[in-house]
Amino acid sequence: MDSLECVPNVSEGRRPEVVARLAAAAASIPGARVLDVSSDPDHNRSVLTLAGSADALHQALLALYETALAEIDLTRHQGVHPRLGAVDVVPFVPLGTTPMAAAVAAAEQLAREVAERFALPVYLYEQAARQSGRRLLAEIRRGGFEGLAAKMADPAWAPDAGPSHPHPTAGASVIGARFFLIAFNALLDTANVEVARAVARRVRESGGGLPAVRAMGVYLASRGQAQVSMNLVDFRRTPLVTALDRVRHEAAALGSRVTETEVIGLVPEEAALDVVRDALQLPGFAADRVLR
Amino acid sequence: MDSLECVPNVSEGRRPEVVARLAAAAASIPGARVLDVSSDPDHNRSVLTLAGSADALHQALLALYETALAEIDLTRHQGVHPRLGAVDVVPFVPLGTTPMAAAVAAAEQLAREVAERFALPVYLYEQAARQSGRRLLAEIRRGGFEGLAAKMADPAWAPDAGPSHPHPTAGASVIGARFFLIAFNALLDTANVEVARAVARRVRESGGGLPAVRAMGVYLASRGQAQVSMNLVDFRRTPLVTALDRVRHEAAALGSRVTETEVIGLVPEEAALDVVRDALQLPGFAADRVLR
Repeated sequence: MDSLECVPNVSEGRRPEVVARLAAAAASIPGARVLDVSSDPDHNRSVLTLAGSADALHQALLALYETALAEIDLTRHQGVHPRLGAVDVVPFVPLGTTPMAAAVAAAEQLAREVAERFALPVYLYEQAARQSGRRLLAEIRRGGFEGLAAKMADPAWAPDAGPSHPHPTAGASVIGARFFLIAFNALLDTANVEVARAVARRVRESGGGLPAVRAMGVYLASRGQAQVSMNLVDFRRTPLVTALDRVRHEAAALGSRVTETEVIGLVPEEAALDVVRDALQLPGFAADRVLR
Repeated sequence: MDSLECVPNVSEGRRPEVVARLAAAAASIPGARVLDVSSDPDHNRSVLTLAGSADALHQALLALYETALAEIDLTRHQGVHPRLGAVDVVPFVPLGTTPMAAAVAAAEQLAREVAERFALPVYLYEQAARQSGRRLLAEIRRGGFEGLAAKMADPAWAPDAGPSHPHPTAGASVIGARFFLIAFNALLDTANVEVARAVARRVRESGGGLPAVRAMGVYLASRGQAQVSMNLVDFRRTPLVTALDRVRHEAAALGSRVTETEVIGLVPEEAALDVVRDALQLPGFAADRVLR
């Protein structure tokens, strides 16, 4: 039984060979499993989904950092997704009956080790945040890699571990602990990113939309389409179907429609069963009714 | 790895203690697993879903027959579902890479043993049928238990194994082999069984409806509602969502609507993933994206 999931987001989504080396580095540690790797060339970003014991994940992440710092140079990185570092965000997520405190401890331990070994500044976020202003990833990441040196010159933005200036090529890392999150994106039938942004504003919690939903609008040049990029941070409060229905509704009000969706990383079985129950009006459906 | 599934349908759905004894009899054989038991009081019928090796299932079925013949008396049985015997229908279904021939062999072996041990007439159906007129269950079952003695007096209806007259309390059994089938029922917001029958006629393949769909309309007295009772005999040709959409459409044309659905037994993982892909417009979704 894996006790933790870890979902490192790295700033490389265009060189498959580099992404493969990052995954291989993590997978080289016994007890660490690589469950999924999703790369997006427009975001120029990859999301790895790892699971294992706290110790195995610690070693797997150190191996991943070492490879990433050798391969990724943020001074030459371009992409539509906001980012601060080569290994941009590293959330630990408790699985099963593992307490959140174990995920927080894993984040703190990794932050200390990464800061020391690679001279990399680290911010702790969400459940691992030590300051209330650092709970939200968006706050920490505001200004991006390009604005990082100026931001760190302000003592209010001293990192939680590591030097008080950016790593020259790897920027900074945001490490933390959070509950399970579903990264769920809806592609629109328009190239107009303003439509996606307007939909995102109406769908997300901060705009008075759905609880436990974060959303932004982005333009995917490789597809010539705008996308509503969502994080469902509590799928029990807002399930996948509810989020999609709202996106469809708000998009329709702006004369647009969803052509398809994607999930980055994994979907908890319970969230997938929710979709089946809802779509089929099948209230009692549970995992023990599925023949594998 | 289980090689076969077996889905005995027994004519008892109102005495839970009898159904529990039937399940316990099957589960007493090492290597035979009882995956699901669904009872319906209106149908007065239960469907057990078993899986295991051919040998384990053979022994499990013999134990189930012995219990059923001791507990069920069809001369006193009432229910809305057509039936011919105490152990009414016993299909074997190949799982994974198991060939259909293995399911046919299991059906033939069980038919011989049951006929001899219990003096019970047995008809072989679907993929195990020895005559083309016996491929369809509905043909064999026409006339029901009440008409069985007269039917068997006709030499054309001599059984494939066992005596040429009904067992006094257990009638006859229909044993066979078939591909995986999803038993999918849609409850309507009307007590008028004619609406359910009309919907069933338009939805099923034999009425020019959807391929690989069988359907009938029944009235569920316990709920005071009519139901469209379907068998999807190839969910790759007609998926769950397609069948439900058609039922909704045909019901709406008659001023009715689906209040909920039920699945009897199990749903193959692939069919459940189909529902998620369809409902979320999520084309690439597969089992390896589900976190258990």
